[in-house]
Amino acid sequence: MSQTEDAQRHQTLMAKTKAAVDARIAAAQTDCGVLLVITGPGKGKSSSGFGMVARALGHGLKVGVVQFIKGSRATGEESFFRRFPQEVSYHVCGEGFTWETQNRERDVQKAQEGWAIAQGLLQRADVGLVLLDELNIVLNKGYLDTDAVLADLAARPAMQHVVVTGRGAPDALVAAAHTVSEVSAVKHAFKQGIRAQPGVEF
Amino acid sequence: MSQTEDAQRHQTLMAKTKAAVDARIAAAQTDCGVLLVITGPGKGKSSSGFGMVARALGHGLKVGVVQFIKGSRATGEESFFRRFPQEVSYHVCGEGFTWETQNRERDVQKAQEGWAIAQGLLQRADVGLVLLDELNIVLNKGYLDTDAVLADLAARPAMQHVVVTGRGAPDALVAAAHTVSEVSAVKHAFKQGIRAQPGVEF
Repeated sequence: MSQTEDAQRHQTLMAKTKAAVDARIAAAQTDCGVLLVITGPGKGKSSSGFGMVARALGHGLKVGVVQFIKGSRATGEESFFRRFPQEVSYHVCGEGFTWETQNRERDVQKAQEGWAIAQGLLQRADVGLVLLDELNIVLNKGYLDTDAVLADLAARPAMQHVVVTGRGAPDALVAAAHTVSEVSAVKHAFKQGIRAQPGVEF
Repeated sequence: MSQTEDAQRHQTLMAKTKAAVDARIAAAQTDCGVLLVITGPGKGKSSSGFGMVARALGHGLKVGVVQFIKGSRATGEESFFRRFPQEVSYHVCGEGFTWETQNRERDVQKAQEGWAIAQGLLQRADVGLVLLDELNIVLNKGYLDTDAVLADLAARPAMQHVVVTGRGAPDALVAAAHTVSEVSAVKHAFKQGIRAQPGVEF
């Protein structure tokens, strides 16, 4: 095939793809607050949530962040997004992983404190995106009641987006969500003897 | 079981978990620039990359971003991270999806221009993290030579982290990476008639 024929063939194929994509785009015209769940064992769930925080800020939205579980060490995301107190309402409501705290009662109490803050954010129509980081873990462990959490999520402002991250998303949350991604670990640096690097893992 | 016994049992179990986790942490003591690949068809790959950009900035690192493929519309991530020209070197080197441009030669040219910029960033020891957004697509389509790209990645400064996103990561890149996550789509709002929402999808 000559280079011209090749280019022509590419153009024809892409035009066909474009027609199909355009038809799908035309079929999707609803605007609403989206509920996203990013779950699974692989690296990239919380960072995906924080990327959406950055995107939302770039579109002039106000953002709320509640970090469950985490809180035993300073993170880059917290240092960074706390620079914008007018745009980001940032809350850390944990004291570290469950095996660090070793106190279920205290973990439950922290989760409940976190949810009280989340409830406040889920009632604010001026907050365009709420990130509930590691909420899945808290639900999975039964520190919060999933039905009660789902009721609060369902009652949020119509155009408010919510991103929930963490392993082990409960089935009922997956069922309620619009978008659900499962992140699997093909491989991880940690297993090759590389410790958690600032800017990447935290 | 009484509440006290239950709390005691939780504490014992968590202490055991902590010992196992601590042993794994003790075994992972290497510090180095990590090569991460976030691939697969699900939502959250680019946003994960941008979350790591935010994390890196929070730790005082300088960051370089090259967005391949994208460029046909303004994104939240671009508006946001361009606020920090001293900290983020931001480059958009595409004109949209391949079915929008319908011109393979032009797509190849844009990819090559993007790679020339990436090469510059991959030589700067003062840049702690480089995000190569949608590079996988460009490699998968053969717009750039994967071996040449891998050689440039291997020659980067020892402590520089690189995040590569996009569907269809080539096997050789997966083999070279320290951390690889595959994001699968359990479900997506788009298929429910909801169009791409600013702050979430772009």
